[in-house]
Amino acid sequence: MQNLSQQIDFILELDKLKAVYRKAMIKNDNNRFENSAEHSWHISLTAHVLAPYVDAAVDISRVTFMLLIHDIVEIDAGDTFAFEHHAILDQQADKERAAANRIFGLLPEPQGKKFSLLWHEFEQAETPDAQFAKAIDRILPLIQNMQNEGGSWAKNRVLKEQVINRNRYLETSAPKLWSYALEQIEIATEKGWLRVE
Amino acid sequence: MQNLSQQIDFILELDKLKAVYRKAMIKNDNNRFENSAEHSWHISLTAHVLAPYVDAAVDISRVTFMLLIHDIVEIDAGDTFAFEHHAILDQQADKERAAANRIFGLLPEPQGKKFSLLWHEFEQAETPDAQFAKAIDRILPLIQNMQNEGGSWAKNRVLKEQVINRNRYLETSAPKLWSYALEQIEIATEKGWLRVE
Repeated sequence: MQNLSQQIDFILELDKLKAVYRKAMIKNDNNRFENSAEHSWHISLTAHVLAPYVDAAVDISRVTFMLLIHDIVEIDAGDTFAFEHHAILDQQADKERAAANRIFGLLPEPQGKKFSLLWHEFEQAETPDAQFAKAIDRILPLIQNMQNEGGSWAKNRVLKEQVINRNRYLETSAPKLWSYALEQIEIATEKGWLRVE
Repeated sequence: MQNLSQQIDFILELDKLKAVYRKAMIKNDNNRFENSAEHSWHISLTAHVLAPYVDAAVDISRVTFMLLIHDIVEIDAGDTFAFEHHAILDQQADKERAAANRIFGLLPEPQGKKFSLLWHEFEQAETPDAQFAKAIDRILPLIQNMQNEGGSWAKNRVLKEQVINRNRYLETSAPKLWSYALEQIEIATEKGWLRVE
């Protein structure tokens, strides 16, 4: 049962993602910060809810699996705000690759390799599955910020253009959702929640 | 875009599950209580990790989908400790059915129906998918309590027999995990974390 003991170590390691806090806040829970574990649940389920809008040949089960694991690396690397400076985001990417090696390395082979490949596929965002997964990961904060008077955008003085670029994966993977996102971004700009340079 | 606006309402409603607290504690986050959203993430991923042990004809994608939605009803019904008295558990089941009607009813048809059917399938625990989903939902607290000096078992003076019965879905769906669970329950009993009448 060598394998099972490694798998249990991995399952226990996952608990640490519940202590990684993001910039988003939970309005329904006294405006505390959201952690990356509950965020991962929310987007995995969001992928199922928004699946009817996908145009490309997307496998929703693989997308869900990707979204379930996509933030695990933050156990070692921490969460970085999406609109940080490039230098900081590059540094973060290095830390995340090292984290993927360590954490997926807890699993027995070939399972660890399978998880690791899926994580890398998500990061590279070249396949239709990974592009839809990225799109979902990015539209949820938009939905949340629109409910929360601009939320993390307003608080961190984010630019309209940054949010448009960040949501661009929707353009090819789910055009209807892309139109929706653009509409919302306009509203947010009119309300002063997003900045224009 | 009537459908999309209903789907967004549903996605926003999900946020409330992050404010439903369980009896389990997060050791890695100052022993605060665990919420049902992060728990749902943890077990959905656990299903993937333990998938190699499934004997029956189980579709892991459906199991994951079930686990992602299985606790949503707690938004209205709250979390009840697994080892409560029967009368309280029966009352809870009624509340959860009403909650399923309201919350899945936020979604457009036929999507709402699809989610609702899946939730009922999980609750009834008759199909191989639902039985493995139940088994995973139940083995994770065991793994967590074993790391936490008996955790919620010790604190609530739970009986060894109750935990054996609660994990019995493993017996048919994943016999190797069943042996593991029985072994762990023995250790917990020897350590005094589980009571014997």
